[in-house]
Amino acid sequence: MERINFIFGIHNHQPLGNFGWVFEEAYNRSYRPFMEILEEFPEMKVNVHFSGPLLEWIEENKPDYLDLLRSLIKRGQLEIVVAGFYEPVLAAIPKEDRLVQIEMLKDYARKLGYDAKGVWLTERVWQPELVKSLREAGIEYVVVDDYHFMSAGLSKEELFWPYYTEDGGEVITVFPIDEKLRYLIPFRPVKKTIEYLESLTSDDPSKVAVFHDDGEKFGVWPGTYEWVYEKGWLREFFDAITSNEKINLMTYSEYLSKFTPRGLVYLPIASYFEMSEWSLPAKQAKLFVEFVEQLKEEGKFEKYRVFVRGGIWKNFFFKYPESNFMHKRMLMVSKAVRDNPEARKYILKAQCNDAYWHGVFGGIYLPHLRRTVWENIIKAQRYLKPENKILDVDFDGRAEIMVENDGFIATIKPHYGGSIFELSSKRKAVNYNDVLPRRWEHYHEVPEATKPEKESEEGIASIHELGKQIPEEIRRELAYDWQLRAILQDHFIKPEETLDNYRLVKYHELGDFVNQPYEYEMIENGVKLWREGGVYAEEKIPARVEKKIELTEDGFIAKYRVLLEKPYKALFGVEINLAVHSVMEKPEEFEAKEFEVNDPYGIGKVRIELDKAAKVWKFPIKTLSQSEAGWDFIQQGVSYTMLFPIEKELEFTVRFREL
Amino acid sequence: MERINFIFGIHNHQPLGNFGWVFEEAYNRSYRPFMEILEEFPEMKVNVHFSGPLLEWIEENKPDYLDLLRSLIKRGQLEIVVAGFYEPVLAAIPKEDRLVQIEMLKDYARKLGYDAKGVWLTERVWQPELVKSLREAGIEYVVVDDYHFMSAGLSKEELFWPYYTEDGGEVITVFPIDEKLRYLIPFRPVKKTIEYLESLTSDDPSKVAVFHDDGEKFGVWPGTYEWVYEKGWLREFFDAITSNEKINLMTYSEYLSKFTPRGLVYLPIASYFEMSEWSLPAKQAKLFVEFVEQLKEEGKFEKYRVFVRGGIWKNFFFKYPESNFMHKRMLMVSKAVRDNPEARKYILKAQCNDAYWHGVFGGIYLPHLRRTVWENIIKAQRYLKPENKILDVDFDGRAEIMVENDGFIATIKPHYGGSIFELSSKRKAVNYNDVLPRRWEHYHEVPEATKPEKESEEGIASIHELGKQIPEEIRRELAYDWQLRAILQDHFIKPEETLDNYRLVKYHELGDFVNQPYEYEMIENGVKLWREGGVYAEEKIPARVEKKIELTEDGFIAKYRVLLEKPYKALFGVEINLAVHSVMEKPEEFEAKEFEVNDPYGIGKVRIELDKAAKVWKFPIKTLSQSEAGWDFIQQGVSYTMLFPIEKELEFTVRFREL
Repeated sequence: MERINFIFGIHNHQPLGNFGWVFEEAYNRSYRPFMEILEEFPEMKVNVHFSGPLLEWIEENKPDYLDLLRSLIKRGQLEIVVAGFYEPVLAAIPKEDRLVQIEMLKDYARKLGYDAKGVWLTERVWQPELVKSLREAGIEYVVVDDYHFMSAGLSKEELFWPYYTEDGGEVITVFPIDEKLRYLIPFRPVKKTIEYLESLTSDDPSKVAVFHDDGEKFGVWPGTYEWVYEKGWLREFFDAITSNEKINLMTYSEYLSKFTPRGLVYLPIASYFEMSEWSLPAKQAKLFVEFVEQLKEEGKFEKYRVFVRGGIWKNFFFKYPESNFMHKRMLMVSKAVRDNPEARKYILKAQCNDAYWHGVFGGIYLPHLRRTVWENIIKAQRYLKPENKILDVDFDGRAEIMVENDGFIATIKPHYGGSIFELSSKRKAVNYNDVLPRRWEHYHEVPEATKPEKESEEGIASIHELGKQIPEEIRRELAYDWQLRAILQDHFIKPEETLDNYRLVKYHELGDFVNQPYEYEMIENGVKLWREGGVYAEEKIPARVEKKIELTEDGFIAKYRVLLEKPYKALFGVEINLAVHSVMEKPEEFEAKEFEVNDPYGIGKVRIELDKAAKVWKFPIKTLSQSEAGWDFIQQGVSYTMLFPIEKELEFTVRFREL
Repeated sequence: MERINFIFGIHNHQPLGNFGWVFEEAYNRSYRPFMEILEEFPEMKVNVHFSGPLLEWIEENKPDYLDLLRSLIKRGQLEIVVAGFYEPVLAAIPKEDRLVQIEMLKDYARKLGYDAKGVWLTERVWQPELVKSLREAGIEYVVVDDYHFMSAGLSKEELFWPYYTEDGGEVITVFPIDEKLRYLIPFRPVKKTIEYLESLTSDDPSKVAVFHDDGEKFGVWPGTYEWVYEKGWLREFFDAITSNEKINLMTYSEYLSKFTPRGLVYLPIASYFEMSEWSLPAKQAKLFVEFVEQLKEEGKFEKYRVFVRGGIWKNFFFKYPESNFMHKRMLMVSKAVRDNPEARKYILKAQCNDAYWHGVFGGIYLPHLRRTVWENIIKAQRYLKPENKILDVDFDGRAEIMVENDGFIATIKPHYGGSIFELSSKRKAVNYNDVLPRRWEHYHEVPEATKPEKESEEGIASIHELGKQIPEEIRRELAYDWQLRAILQDHFIKPEETLDNYRLVKYHELGDFVNQPYEYEMIENGVKLWREGGVYAEEKIPARVEKKIELTEDGFIAKYRVLLEKPYKALFGVEINLAVHSVMEKPEEFEAKEFEVNDPYGIGKVRIELDKAAKVWKFPIKTLSQSEAGWDFIQQGVSYTMLFPIEKELEFTVRFREL
């Protein structure tokens, strides 16, 4: 009788630093009910990956769930698949850390009674060099999308077998995930999956169809809880799979104990198809969607999609300078603490992938995720002796100045307005300038949902098909920054300018200082920076801005001197962008000689002190991003601009105090 | 005044093992005249890469040319750019060999008076892991196509600067080559290039346009000698470049002494655009060309080409099993001789890229190039103790049997007809089975030339635009094999079958032995293989073929026993495919108990001895491939099939003697 082997796998993960209630909800709506129903079907086998952050939360909050997993493992119903413990994108961390991360999760699997040999490739980001790292970590197989194989020139019919891939003379087995199953399970009725699997039966005993995808699709994704549990989809699915003679259910290692890979392939750097859109710079992403939509309309997409490719995951470092800076700071500290296991533990945590990128999931736009990465980078750096350094930290071709004392790390970009792009507090383990600017994203202009699949619409829409219009109250407040957001950014503004114009970027910047190069020289505890720029009124008035930044025990002091060659009435504004995330602020204008900022669950309390009163413009920096639920309008930080009238010359001091 | 920096580079290479007259011709038509004219323009600067094989030939045959290079270097007119000495694709060789290969060419450059810091990326095959190898080899910059950058999401306007790229925390500078210049130089009139460069002038002093391409385009490519030298294109070009105030000519290192890279990018695995077509399996390559042609016809190609990608270079190992087998044998021996510098020298030679792939250039289809790779693998293996091994040599998921004595290495594939897929003579350093089967290539069906560029057709057609119709006399002889071509392949053939049907694959194979699995057990000096298969006459007649293969001092002996369960009149044919390359053979049928094969410049003399006379079918295996000149119909080997009548049982012995 013609049969088809079937491997069914899920990958469960919650980002490090996610809110407790999110873990709780995902546990109650997906992780727990899924395994409880699995227990009812002793014939059913699932290949499962739990990420480290999730296991740590479960161990702390739901210890009995681990016993359930142990018993399922003992009954042969669960094969544990591992990854880097803190779910890093393996290609984006040093190879030494890859080994430690994988070994940590293999240890945990052994504690549950399973000797794991396979890896779930985080975000399916492949890079050939991983073959060596994975083999060194004792891994024998890795799961990737069929999209990787098709990009390597294999046709659909060739994707129902695992293959070897080789690098530097070493090989590892790669299993392709079937994209069709990814759209069917669990969104379409069970019979659709069974029909599809039955269409694949053959007399070749080694033919296999692989499903492996997010466990959150079974109860956490919008609408799936009711569909998967209350309407009984999962029970029906487990029953249909285990009772169908044509479907030969097995785990990855069972398969590899019977069959060897079918041949040798070389996979390009790739992830899954949607990622290749998200990782493109916004302008190119828009062009990419336009191209894909046209091909779909002309009915050509299915035929030629294998040749249609966007960006690769690491392009997020090109797309989001803040992600790149965080990543390169992580790499820097990882190298420095490699021989210090305690410090290293924090760096491994800082490698959790989610805060470094954004698509429909994943959260560079989620401040609490970024905060967790910074927290762990800073905690690791506490183990290092403070030292001032001048080096190109983020490889943008220009050097940064890192000033450090026992309390703070300040990273200044002389070439970008001489401003502070990192102000990390060692005591609080927070980066005060963890602020994202407001950027145009291509999906701001392509609100209509991705075209749903052609065939019948039974079941529920997958995340990629949800309709999205931008609500009017958001559109009114939506603005795009022309500047990156740092601390001590030097503006020249018309006296009559309004806060609303300024915050919605409808104002006219008179000076050329904010994003232009400053010269510098190192001074005691800090650095002196200056620029001979200009104020562009009716004609260009040469202007010099000079600032001495000194780190103090509780923050920094900045002494400013501003000179205009010819008198001109303007406002000189010093902008300080702070990572205020947990208190929702409103735009506000006030006069003050000093004021406090309070962000209880974020950067805590801070005081800004001036040596003379100034008008202060305060406003929240809110970005628009997409998420499972549709639109998120998120406060990435708060901007405080102290405005001093100037006509010829101006001197003042700004003091930043951590409280 | 607005200016544009311009970097002009050429890459000169001839594959190891290429005919002497090819080196001579390229020297006379390109390498020499180019440098002699350069000497006339002291202001002109060229960044040049000479591959190791070319330098070795020049040192031996044209030593005074090296003095010309030395003087040009001394005058500051030449910057030497290096690569792996024997022009390996760096991504496809072990990292330990990368370092040695690059160091060898840097040594040579020092001998010429230049301390090279830059790498010409062979066939521009990029892989992120190369950052570490290149940095370790003291390299600071590498030259790649702008296609790599556009695939990473950069727009055209961003490609006039070098960037950093990073892997594992290390960075290297990458210069993008401008594709527009690649089509203009030297094919279009000089003023076109000047107009284009002048259109790029800007007030940003760091903006730069880079041309770097094959030196053979200046005199070796069809039609270019007359155009570049006799019609004075090169002199006009050098003059126009050096006398144009808006064009600031410089070398790579001069640029890097003045400017730093513009930012950080992450490049996908890629090479140049045409390579992504050639590296696809034929069926997919046809689909790819179809897709590109449609987009061109719809005028969409320029806009969306950045998202249109085919295969990656290593897919050639998937496309050509013979290339993959050669590559994995190289890797195997490279590992074994790593600590033996003398043996290693040969392996480094075996890494010369050209024989491993094929597009319009490069030569898996050129037997003399493959022969040189095998020669060097075998010469390296001579340093190893002979040993029998059972292992999956080429990672196709099935084990091979390697039988070895002092004189020979035989690699048998039990799963593919129990045949010998490598028979390497240690004395002659030749692989007797270095034979390519006849495969369909997508360009067999898309003869019309690639559409030439839209704008005016002045100048001469670039190689990618030459018209190609398959001549009738070739089309008549063109056939595609259903089998790989090995030694001792077991056929069952109808008695009345003709040689012509057999050689043009119009015959009916009665047996299921040629490409099906045999069981085996090791015996003294060899291996015994057998299969219980069938002969498919009116109905299936179970049949058993058994063969004992023993290596001897001068070759091998194969003792056959063939049994049919029921009597059936057929011919049992044992096919031996030999790498006869230098003698053009004709199809021939003869009776013989023994016969000799003579291939003076290839595998030399061999004798096949039978213990009883048999009918022998001999025919040349000719493949159709494209080359600069249009079509090549190349003899890849000669097939000899000894046909024995069989009705119930048959025993015979075949002896292969190296003379």
